[in-house]
Amino acid sequence: MKIALAQQNYIIGDFEGNRKKIIAGIREAKKRSADVVLFSELSVCGYPPRDFLEFHDFVQQCLHSIELITKEAVGIAALVGAPSINNKPEGKDLYNSAYFLYDGKVQQIVNKSLLPNYDVFDEYRYFEANQEFGVVEFLGRRIAFTVCEDLWNTGINPLYITTPVDKISTFSPDYMLNISASPFDYNHAVERINLLKETAKRYHLPIFYCNCVGAQTELIFDGGSLVISPNGEVFDEMNFFEEQLCIYDLDEVIQSKNVVNREQPKSKIPLIYKALVAGVREYFKKLNFQKAILGLSGGIDSAVVACIAVDALGKENVKVLLMPSQYSSEHSISDALQLVKNLQIDHEVISLQKVYDASLDTLEPYFSGKQFDVTEENLQARIRAMFLMSFCNKHHYILLNTSNKSEMAVGYGTLYGDMCGGMAVLGDVYKTEVYELVKYINNEKLIIPENIINKPPSAELRPDQKDSDSLPEYSILDSILYQYIEQRQGPEQLVQKGFERSLVERVLKMVNRNEHKRYQSPPILRISQKSFGSGRRLPIVAKYLS
Amino acid sequence: MKIALAQQNYIIGDFEGNRKKIIAGIREAKKRSADVVLFSELSVCGYPPRDFLEFHDFVQQCLHSIELITKEAVGIAALVGAPSINNKPEGKDLYNSAYFLYDGKVQQIVNKSLLPNYDVFDEYRYFEANQEFGVVEFLGRRIAFTVCEDLWNTGINPLYITTPVDKISTFSPDYMLNISASPFDYNHAVERINLLKETAKRYHLPIFYCNCVGAQTELIFDGGSLVISPNGEVFDEMNFFEEQLCIYDLDEVIQSKNVVNREQPKSKIPLIYKALVAGVREYFKKLNFQKAILGLSGGIDSAVVACIAVDALGKENVKVLLMPSQYSSEHSISDALQLVKNLQIDHEVISLQKVYDASLDTLEPYFSGKQFDVTEENLQARIRAMFLMSFCNKHHYILLNTSNKSEMAVGYGTLYGDMCGGMAVLGDVYKTEVYELVKYINNEKLIIPENIINKPPSAELRPDQKDSDSLPEYSILDSILYQYIEQRQGPEQLVQKGFERSLVERVLKMVNRNEHKRYQSPPILRISQKSFGSGRRLPIVAKYLS
Repeated sequence: MKIALAQQNYIIGDFEGNRKKIIAGIREAKKRSADVVLFSELSVCGYPPRDFLEFHDFVQQCLHSIELITKEAVGIAALVGAPSINNKPEGKDLYNSAYFLYDGKVQQIVNKSLLPNYDVFDEYRYFEANQEFGVVEFLGRRIAFTVCEDLWNTGINPLYITTPVDKISTFSPDYMLNISASPFDYNHAVERINLLKETAKRYHLPIFYCNCVGAQTELIFDGGSLVISPNGEVFDEMNFFEEQLCIYDLDEVIQSKNVVNREQPKSKIPLIYKALVAGVREYFKKLNFQKAILGLSGGIDSAVVACIAVDALGKENVKVLLMPSQYSSEHSISDALQLVKNLQIDHEVISLQKVYDASLDTLEPYFSGKQFDVTEENLQARIRAMFLMSFCNKHHYILLNTSNKSEMAVGYGTLYGDMCGGMAVLGDVYKTEVYELVKYINNEKLIIPENIINKPPSAELRPDQKDSDSLPEYSILDSILYQYIEQRQGPEQLVQKGFERSLVERVLKMVNRNEHKRYQSPPILRISQKSFGSGRRLPIVAKYLS
Repeated sequence: MKIALAQQNYIIGDFEGNRKKIIAGIREAKKRSADVVLFSELSVCGYPPRDFLEFHDFVQQCLHSIELITKEAVGIAALVGAPSINNKPEGKDLYNSAYFLYDGKVQQIVNKSLLPNYDVFDEYRYFEANQEFGVVEFLGRRIAFTVCEDLWNTGINPLYITTPVDKISTFSPDYMLNISASPFDYNHAVERINLLKETAKRYHLPIFYCNCVGAQTELIFDGGSLVISPNGEVFDEMNFFEEQLCIYDLDEVIQSKNVVNREQPKSKIPLIYKALVAGVREYFKKLNFQKAILGLSGGIDSAVVACIAVDALGKENVKVLLMPSQYSSEHSISDALQLVKNLQIDHEVISLQKVYDASLDTLEPYFSGKQFDVTEENLQARIRAMFLMSFCNKHHYILLNTSNKSEMAVGYGTLYGDMCGGMAVLGDVYKTEVYELVKYINNEKLIIPENIINKPPSAELRPDQKDSDSLPEYSILDSILYQYIEQRQGPEQLVQKGFERSLVERVLKMVNRNEHKRYQSPPILRISQKSFGSGRRLPIVAKYLS
């Protein structure tokens, strides 16, 4: 019995493209003598389809795709993800299902039981939870089918009242096939592998786990599909961030014979870098964009974004604007120019002065008597954004936003200024992690100049400005932010962890008061367990720690 | 037996303020001889608290509030909304609960069974669903407690597999107390009243339904708390958009004796107008802002927003900027000035020319040889936004966005230009509905000049531009948009309804391709059943009808 895992990259709503890919996978698996081939969760429509699922037309197209794919499942079985209709009058109208196709027929539809509805997930918005369990016999073996989250109800405080694998295990399955669409974060690969090892061992069940790859706007899917032996050993781990089709012999997996075990490297910073490159590349590819533009300030954030963009899109497709104002330091320009040279990318140097002066001149009658303040600082940032967007409009670039997570958190950025962009590349990367990315980028060859790394961070919007004038040191700031944002620790818990109370209160207040800015930020590539964006939902109007 | 309904306005996370308000309500109800007083759903923390519920500290503060409020429930019972802890290891850690307080003790915690998780609702993100049903005996009568959605599982295709009122009715309750936080849309008041009448009749049960008022960022709560007799008659409907505490005699309600029946007017356009005024007022009040600014173009959208702002904040707190460019028509300025005069608001006329010229001059080397296009159009919109934001920064105004729903839908607007603002006042109001609002505003007295109403809509960003150059007539466009957005009709269904196929495809493509713009739009006051924003979640990267 040979089992194929097709780790593929889908486009949401591209029924024809996704179907072609799935059918090609079935044909390849069949040619390579597989008996069954797995695709990932909701593969016919791409994951997450979000509110497209509320459209009858969209669901019908999913079902039509299943019909066409079913015809290909001859001489091989296929397990394909798609929504299915809940025919009972009560409950939501759809299930999130695994279609088991064989002999040109839908042999079984297995519905997902555990519907993730936390962080970026909204599955209970669309789907009814399955409550019926069983196994399917195929070529003399009993298969346990599960969909993604169905595996994840563990620990002493499980999230769901039902544990599907417990229920299914009473039917004595011989092996498990799981179809998933499980987004990347820098801890996820380790958690996933540990969970699957534990589950395989606990139920003494070989597990074939098929994940998707690619990115869907802010969500990045790393693949890393897994085959686990019943003794909890990794039989194989498929590539990260790449499409792949691999075939395994069930008996070898059961006996842990001829173990492949290409366990993938899982250290944090390289994973983040690769994920961000994949995220940028996919955004452009799937939307048919080619060229990126960004403002290069001479600081590390824009330097890192430029490097990622070059890796994702090719140096010929990346342009940078250097837009000094009267408050920019000499070396900001020379450092940025050095980076431009190292990356061999296109650039322009454009002075803000004329437009800045014209703006001040126009606004002078209404500002007279008032001191230079955040108004004039924001004005510079907004003129830069206007220039960048003008290049986008005139020459069809997409603007990459360079704000980091620390800035996004405390609102250190100008709305409609440096917060503009089609995609926030570093919006989920703390400043201290940006420094680590620089080290990683410079590991083999000095690409980002030392000066950019060593100078104290500054927005350069007024004379001698430093980030540290307004913010605590980033090492401390980021620790507090991580505890508050990722770990949901409150002020008392933070004080107990040794942070100064007044600092904690100040930082939390900055975070909570800047919800309105983040509300209008570009989509942020998600690389942590708690990114700003759809996975973190807070009211703008509120009085809590603010 | 006297039952009080306290229809109050809470601030999310303002534990002290909300608690004071609830305690004042208890004291007033007691003074007025009530036996029990109801507050709305999650009243101690305000609704919707969203991801604040993931913070242990936040939940503890809710429980602490309940403790303090409980002490006040002496000589009177109170039903207060707050989260409670799920002590079972399985399932989510919280319930959405009604606390029945009496004799200075928590007598009963009744948990919500039906957790809305569609549109703007995310309750399954935080709460476990209750599965246990019963009644509570109090002063010799059996009370059925329900929380908001618990009443709403009706029709031939109910959303949930459990119908709580069916379950509770088997315990023969004498009356029902429901605590709600049910946001406004222009159909909601009619639906709510019909549902309650039907439910009261079906179970022959008097219902006391307590809703909150006020707005929480984009969500507006209209109040309209209800008392329904067991024969399905409206015994009373409390005021819309106002705090109120009313007391009813249970026996009178049972017997339909001394019916109060202040049924509130429910026609669409006045309701929308009042909701928008409430939405703007609340945003400012709850965030301690005072003054609004907006750009007055001479078109109807900004005219209507100016009127709403004046009603919400007072004429002394509204300032408008008139920012003509070379493409603005003469009468745009004179019409806008007439409106300024009618509204008696502060204004400035500021020319774009200097900054526009300086921008073109600066960008000329990079644009040479290219024709005037959307770049120069957007530039004008972005300079206007920059001026408005400079006033906000320098003089502490909040910018009101004036985009309407038709524009938001098809992407007819400039990101970081006219799409800027702290709040999109008309973002859920179609252009055709904006015209109806104008009629309503001008009903008693001509405030918005005829010229503004009668001229063809134009962005005035190039010579002789009209909206109708790029868009179908608004009456047709809005019909298609309503069918697609509110009714989730697909292209085939729209063609069947008589719309031209090529037009349908063109409009749907515009909607789906502009998800990236809406992603970065300000929060939109929700007045329909499907507003852009948190209630409509679609991927940016997708290939569906696009």
